[in-house]
Amino acid sequence: MEFNEKTFDRTVIYNGKIIDLEIHDVELPDGKTSKREIVNHNGAVAVCAITPENEVLLVKQYRKPVEKPLLEIPAGKLEEDEEREEAAKRELEEETGYIANDLSFITHMYGSPGFSNEKLSIYFSDNLSEGEMNLDDDEFVELHKVPIDKIKDLLDSDEIEDAKTIIGLQYILLNYNHSK
Amino acid sequence: MEFNEKTFDRTVIYNGKIIDLEIHDVELPDGKTSKREIVNHNGAVAVCAITPENEVLLVKQYRKPVEKPLLEIPAGKLEEDEEREEAAKRELEEETGYIANDLSFITHMYGSPGFSNEKLSIYFSDNLSEGEMNLDDDEFVELHKVPIDKIKDLLDSDEIEDAKTIIGLQYILLNYNHSK
Repeated sequence: MEFNEKTFDRTVIYNGKIIDLEIHDVELPDGKTSKREIVNHNGAVAVCAITPENEVLLVKQYRKPVEKPLLEIPAGKLEEDEEREEAAKRELEEETGYIANDLSFITHMYGSPGFSNEKLSIYFSDNLSEGEMNLDDDEFVELHKVPIDKIKDLLDSDEIEDAKTIIGLQYILLNYNHSK
Repeated sequence: MEFNEKTFDRTVIYNGKIIDLEIHDVELPDGKTSKREIVNHNGAVAVCAITPENEVLLVKQYRKPVEKPLLEIPAGKLEEDEEREEAAKRELEEETGYIANDLSFITHMYGSPGFSNEKLSIYFSDNLSEGEMNLDDDEFVELHKVPIDKIKDLLDSDEIEDAKTIIGLQYILLNYNHSK
């Protein structure tokens, strides 16, 4: 099947700090036309990290769009021209005070591919050492350390509602050898 | 810790078909102020569905924001005043031609809580019967049926990049008794 949607006109609605908004006029596979609302985002990274004490690092922060605090794996936006693994290490240290001595790649994810191009890459590390927390001016986060053997209960409790965090915790349950 | 961010001014940038965009001026926990870019979305649902032949139903469709087709579990937006389970059953039948005779709830997820309030609810069903496909005018989807014993390979291949789909497939690996 031919899926491609070709843009023949593009209107920039907004250029912001974190996102831009564009409307594309597209030609559909059957030759008809439609409009697509597209939120452009520079990309993001997250780290599913396990301490030497077998605890998963989570951060709680207020998420204004959903008007409540969410419990999430450490994450953040890519800075301009920043390499993804570098950003993952930087965000982990800034938000938790831990340095990842190595990272392995779990997956990319698109959280809302119907309207946004945000591509978030999730990494894993169980090789951490102590670094230094350093939060952005408008960032208020609370560090939570959850023992690995509580992860299944936490997922089953529906307390975790952030997509990247659900993926990271399910990944641990599926792939991490708890008895190490 | 006090996390709340209070909106003291709000600018509507755009009112669209699928999303709205607003800028909120907020007061942070330390009394300073900042701006939050917020994409409002009416909410969405998805269904992780298994046929009597032990196949998972996936749909491939072109996602304009990421400029490529993605392989996803069937999903769609809530219609106005529509109840979530009802929407899940409707979308499953429209996109795959299967009726879910019952649904169980897997999880809610926020795909991009840093800038969007889109709340997507994922359901599970392995009790399907034959219905009738009925796609929207601007919707082009290709149905894929993946045998359950291929799901782990599919996840490991990094071919699945859609967050709700990764969550649904990991859920099957963690919770579904393949030998039923």
